[in-house]
Amino acid sequence: MTNPRLAAYCSSEADAVQNRLFRWLEIPSISAAPEHAADVRRSAVWLADACRDAGFERVEIFETPGHPSVFAQWSGAPPGAPTVLVYGHHDVQPVDPIDAWEHPPFEPIVVDGECRARGAIDDKGQVLYHLEAVRATLAERGSLPVNLKLLVEGEEEVGSPHFEALLAERAAELACDVIVVSDTGMIAPDVPSTDVSMRGLVAATVTLTTSSIDLHSGTFGGAVPNPLHHLARLVHRLHDDEGRVALPGFADDVAPLSAAEAASLADQPFDEEEFRRLAGVAFLEGEDGRSTLERIGARPTAEVVGIWGGYTGDGIKTIVPASALAKISFRLVPDQDPAAIMTLVSDWIRSEVADGIAVDIVWHGGVAPARTDTDHWSFAALARAITTVWGRAPLLTRVGGSGPEESLGRVLDAPVVFLGVGLPGDRIHAPNERMVMDQFWRGLCAAGELYDELAAAAEAVDPAT
Amino acid sequence: MTNPRLAAYCSSEADAVQNRLFRWLEIPSISAAPEHAADVRRSAVWLADACRDAGFERVEIFETPGHPSVFAQWSGAPPGAPTVLVYGHHDVQPVDPIDAWEHPPFEPIVVDGECRARGAIDDKGQVLYHLEAVRATLAERGSLPVNLKLLVEGEEEVGSPHFEALLAERAAELACDVIVVSDTGMIAPDVPSTDVSMRGLVAATVTLTTSSIDLHSGTFGGAVPNPLHHLARLVHRLHDDEGRVALPGFADDVAPLSAAEAASLADQPFDEEEFRRLAGVAFLEGEDGRSTLERIGARPTAEVVGIWGGYTGDGIKTIVPASALAKISFRLVPDQDPAAIMTLVSDWIRSEVADGIAVDIVWHGGVAPARTDTDHWSFAALARAITTVWGRAPLLTRVGGSGPEESLGRVLDAPVVFLGVGLPGDRIHAPNERMVMDQFWRGLCAAGELYDELAAAAEAVDPAT
Repeated sequence: MTNPRLAAYCSSEADAVQNRLFRWLEIPSISAAPEHAADVRRSAVWLADACRDAGFERVEIFETPGHPSVFAQWSGAPPGAPTVLVYGHHDVQPVDPIDAWEHPPFEPIVVDGECRARGAIDDKGQVLYHLEAVRATLAERGSLPVNLKLLVEGEEEVGSPHFEALLAERAAELACDVIVVSDTGMIAPDVPSTDVSMRGLVAATVTLTTSSIDLHSGTFGGAVPNPLHHLARLVHRLHDDEGRVALPGFADDVAPLSAAEAASLADQPFDEEEFRRLAGVAFLEGEDGRSTLERIGARPTAEVVGIWGGYTGDGIKTIVPASALAKISFRLVPDQDPAAIMTLVSDWIRSEVADGIAVDIVWHGGVAPARTDTDHWSFAALARAITTVWGRAPLLTRVGGSGPEESLGRVLDAPVVFLGVGLPGDRIHAPNERMVMDQFWRGLCAAGELYDELAAAAEAVDPAT
Repeated sequence: MTNPRLAAYCSSEADAVQNRLFRWLEIPSISAAPEHAADVRRSAVWLADACRDAGFERVEIFETPGHPSVFAQWSGAPPGAPTVLVYGHHDVQPVDPIDAWEHPPFEPIVVDGECRARGAIDDKGQVLYHLEAVRATLAERGSLPVNLKLLVEGEEEVGSPHFEALLAERAAELACDVIVVSDTGMIAPDVPSTDVSMRGLVAATVTLTTSSIDLHSGTFGGAVPNPLHHLARLVHRLHDDEGRVALPGFADDVAPLSAAEAASLADQPFDEEEFRRLAGVAFLEGEDGRSTLERIGARPTAEVVGIWGGYTGDGIKTIVPASALAKISFRLVPDQDPAAIMTLVSDWIRSEVADGIAVDIVWHGGVAPARTDTDHWSFAALARAITTVWGRAPLLTRVGGSGPEESLGRVLDAPVVFLGVGLPGDRIHAPNERMVMDQFWRGLCAAGELYDELAAAAEAVDPAT
């Protein structure tokens, strides 16, 4: 931690900060579980109180048709200072299988320098280091170098169903010059990195129906279409023999990696064996001629996430089923367009399935792939902040996942940069989630650094009158 | 009905017979539903009482670890008369979807010459016409021409899990010279037929597992094996491009049709459009170069009856699932051997699935295909009885289904002939099951005729001393 000012805060206030972290992590704000709705609200209220306590001037709970978001604002920066909006979320993933937790998920504890708790790194810890950076800076200087807005969502773990509407509705209050997303990770503690793209996602439930009723396989088997066979054929044909998504035209709009991205990809110390071990699989597979890092970050995919049909109980039932369903997801990369891909996929499915089989396709929304503008001044500021704290310039990474970041940038019309301190072994969404505390303290310092760097960079581009 | 003796009985006793039929059909003996266990027993008790009332000398409820069977015996035939065992079942299929019934399934009614009720044709009606033929014959003559045993199972609709053990345990009491199975159908009221083979069945639940946990598709998607994709490939490869089961060696032991069977197949007035309509499908498909009748009766099949894996709830979940399951059934025809097919299928699956994917195969028992010995005297007797009642010699049909008939013939070491009066539109296992009453009365006459014909045929082969 090379920022002496914030390093001192981390040291002197360590117990108080950790105490606040624990109090928040004790609240089981599981957005997917209706019985935890009150806890999600309690988490929002806790955060709102903490924002006021940290020195934000205006704090408000933003209601949605689902779980609430928290908005906090401090707007006392000098004239001409940029407005920065920090994004995170306060809801957490479910905890099953609960038996797999070595320590109860909502009784946070620090063991071996790791905070163990559901939500530690995803994403309460990453919100809190911003809050503490604000508190430290205000305590020391009485002001922040930028106008700061904090928007902390309560439904990220259930796909942010009301987030885009909230952004649109509150666009005026959320207006900003740059968005800092802190819900991601880096390669390793000694290999800092920042994300420059996230994959998009479209997904559909596809139903093939051949008859109105299950048929007796003794009477009809062998002479009537079996929708499970037709669905299996469809799924099989999603990929060609080289592991590529086989839909004609699917990858036409995929943009090649920039030179900087390609260099970063080559520089990444990626341990393929460790990745395989983390996944718990015996082998890796994907598109021929692509590295694992390309496959998970830079390439679009087709992935069946669920399939079912016919009889699924004990033993056997002698039927030819009437229908079969598959949930098919497509991860998209820049510059694929979700709407165009939905049309392409729907057309392909209908062309593949035999005439006379009813095809029903229900799309479950879509998220466009997101790309950071690395030529923007905010990106240079981020890189400097990370370099200061981690002692090394960040590599550029492409994130395989999809999130609300795309709609943030699009709806608020601002560049998005990623400050994230997660590590590959953090077990997000899994039992025994952890946050490495060293990364938390560095995140705190980097957040404070970033505010300064953003103020300086904006000033350099457009000097205040 | 050209048997005047029994025709007179059908006429004079019509109301009483129908009344008994209704009383039995009112009992919801659904063997698959634990909450109906008492009803299955009530059905057995009702039948046992009815057997005593019809004149059987010895009646016993055979207990099993599941639902009970009913055994009834009359052994007063002249010396040298054959012993005939009649098989049927008293349990019925579930009734869902209940809303699809035009009339409550357990409130039997005769409409348009059809008895509408669950179990009407499958199989209570077909057991009862034997009972009434016995009653009529005993009432008229005081004796039967054969020693008659009745074995009426209570678990046929759940796959007869305890039937073979019961046969083995009671083999001495069940010993017989010929077995008459009455749980099948014929082509049309004016095209009588009898089954000469039933397909066998082996079935397995196949599980492919790639990891111990579902993986986040953002982190891992595109670089790890997806078991749903591998399962889809496996299912797709069950058949070749010509619709044949593609497993090498699978059909090696399939015996060609006999000349008589081939002639019967050619003579069958089969309405393919009606068959398609009954199945509720838009088109028929199966092995290239085979007729629909061959496909459903004379050819082995591979049919996936159920499949599932991954996320199957609302919307989408961004995972690469850890495992995928399919229930795969294979209908077998003479002379395929279930044990050999199980080995062949298991070996094939393991050879098809990529190394490193765990394969689990659980077999759910097996039923060998059954073939009637059409050169046996009992078959000639059956053909004469049918010809007498329907006015036309029966065509030879192959049944697509599988049943306990194979174990009957094998364990009791006796030839099996099929007297069955069901019709293609009887909606067995479906809502609005029916029995055409004309077929019931003919069945009654044919059963009585058959006892006489069997006695005469046995006498001709092996004259009583």
